[in-house]
Amino acid sequence: MSSELYDEKKAADIVVSSRIRLARNFENYNFAHVDRKTSGEEIVEKVYLAIVKGNRKYEEEFNLIRIESISEVDRLRYVEKHLISIMLSNNTKTGAFVLNTEETISIMINEEDHVRIQCIVPDLQLDKALASAYIIDDLIEKDMTYEFHEKFGYLSSCPTNIGTGLRASVMLHLPVLSNVGYIGGIKRVAGQIGLAVRGIYGEGTEAKGNLFQISNQITLGISEEETLKNLKNTVVQIIQKESALRDKLLLEKKDEVEDNVFRALGILKNARIITTNEAMKLISSLKLGIALNLIQDISLEEVDLLISSIQVGYLHKHFKENLVEKERDIKRAEIIRGQVNRRRK
Amino acid sequence: MSSELYDEKKAADIVVSSRIRLARNFENYNFAHVDRKTSGEEIVEKVYLAIVKGNRKYEEEFNLIRIESISEVDRLRYVEKHLISIMLSNNTKTGAFVLNTEETISIMINEEDHVRIQCIVPDLQLDKALASAYIIDDLIEKDMTYEFHEKFGYLSSCPTNIGTGLRASVMLHLPVLSNVGYIGGIKRVAGQIGLAVRGIYGEGTEAKGNLFQISNQITLGISEEETLKNLKNTVVQIIQKESALRDKLLLEKKDEVEDNVFRALGILKNARIITTNEAMKLISSLKLGIALNLIQDISLEEVDLLISSIQVGYLHKHFKENLVEKERDIKRAEIIRGQVNRRRK
Repeated sequence: MSSELYDEKKAADIVVSSRIRLARNFENYNFAHVDRKTSGEEIVEKVYLAIVKGNRKYEEEFNLIRIESISEVDRLRYVEKHLISIMLSNNTKTGAFVLNTEETISIMINEEDHVRIQCIVPDLQLDKALASAYIIDDLIEKDMTYEFHEKFGYLSSCPTNIGTGLRASVMLHLPVLSNVGYIGGIKRVAGQIGLAVRGIYGEGTEAKGNLFQISNQITLGISEEETLKNLKNTVVQIIQKESALRDKLLLEKKDEVEDNVFRALGILKNARIITTNEAMKLISSLKLGIALNLIQDISLEEVDLLISSIQVGYLHKHFKENLVEKERDIKRAEIIRGQVNRRRK
Repeated sequence: MSSELYDEKKAADIVVSSRIRLARNFENYNFAHVDRKTSGEEIVEKVYLAIVKGNRKYEEEFNLIRIESISEVDRLRYVEKHLISIMLSNNTKTGAFVLNTEETISIMINEEDHVRIQCIVPDLQLDKALASAYIIDDLIEKDMTYEFHEKFGYLSSCPTNIGTGLRASVMLHLPVLSNVGYIGGIKRVAGQIGLAVRGIYGEGTEAKGNLFQISNQITLGISEEETLKNLKNTVVQIIQKESALRDKLLLEKKDEVEDNVFRALGILKNARIITTNEAMKLISSLKLGIALNLIQDISLEEVDLLISSIQVGYLHKHFKENLVEKERDIKRAEIIRGQVNRRRK
């Protein structure tokens, strides 16, 4: 596999985004401080100031958002956009996050760790995401002292994060691998080299819309560079496999693929009631159709935005809180029709 | 039910067509003559001449078609259009039919009976269809002598046709009655008063696309007028029931109906491979959507034409004989897309 030419265009059709997360904890605040109002709040203030103070640009770009100050709907919405974790969204006592206006960098404060710096970038750009995270990391370290052990590295409340504190992950759209039943095999192989394959909302969630997140599991005894290299190698292999299977599919079952893609488009354009699960399935077919050039007037970026807009939190935020399930399914169908039927130049 | 107002517009949305068939046999030719080349051919000639001779208009309008002279595909095509029976299409020895250019009148010769005069008209117009059949009946009787018994009426090779030789039937589109499981009950009630409820290709065929044919089963001891009156009464009741259920559905489950109708439209507009069964099911939803005014730019007449164009015979005739199943499913999807996506004024 690895000897095959790596096709940038095809890779871009398969990779949705790359994400870096650095877990950090401070000296002089034990791990339980995230639960104590006074010291927890002290961490929030200090971290925020470390990032923005004396930097006009950052002061404008980064906002401090306290969990307790936002509505439940907004919390859910940030979770859906992968900007905060469910755990942070539940910490209404001391939980907070610093978010840039672009929504590519989120510094979670008082989550499982004192600080979790997270950067999301489109495509396979782990190095770029890590570089962004390091900038924030350095800003914080300039003012505060991280709990760091000469031998082990960064210390953490959860042993799985000790060492680099780095979690790197890549989100991939793998409809064909998934359809032919290869994901199980990939999970096993990935597991053997310390990588995990999960659905898009992290641990314990099923893969919706054939979107998978591949991430490193080991942070101890391995450098950041090695971590990224290992992950990238595996991701590239998975991309090549998915890509080869897509080519094979187009060659051998063009009619069936077209049928599947256009039926999905037809239903998305016309349905009046649709669940998240069904929508995600159909959108997966749509993404495949765009990648295979069967559909040309909708872009993958538009579809990825659409995925975000059909989640429960979005619907509650943009329509009305506490919509019952059927109302949500109707609104979801409305949003999808609006997006997919939109006239494009 | 019968006290409810009969809504012509709603009835027209439910009734597809009315059909009359008169079975007639001739003196001096016993029933087996349909199988004997010489006398069978004599009947063909005489019937055709009886209809057209001395009548310029009819000579232009009516064509004699011998089963042996047309291809298998053409035979199937006439069967699909309900213009001849499967039995006639199989009589390659003496089978023939006289068909008008409008394809509303077909006189089958040497079917189970020497002659079967058939008239199809749109909507619920049994009297009109019977009047047309009588014109042909009189023309034939002017030249030839029917086997007629003072007490029993017209004689026939099959005892079920003895008497009036009349089979009157109405084709109805009953998606809602069918969906709520009422067809079984209707069949039983209809059976008790001598009516049969069948799928669109007559005896022994399942109802495709929720299209049902209601017809009289009794021809002995009942006049033509009574036969039509009985049938009409029952049909009107069924129409009222279907119509009432449609109103109820729109009132109580508008979203679900719209969802079903527009999904069907979306699939019909986009599918690349489709079986007859699935297409008939979706077209049934489309017809309901048009009747309920949810879809306005396609007419029921167009949809009924579409039903005819997705049958196997049509596909073989217009593309290539002996298409394999998958090729047919692809061509069928192509025809449907062409029709349903056609820009209308």
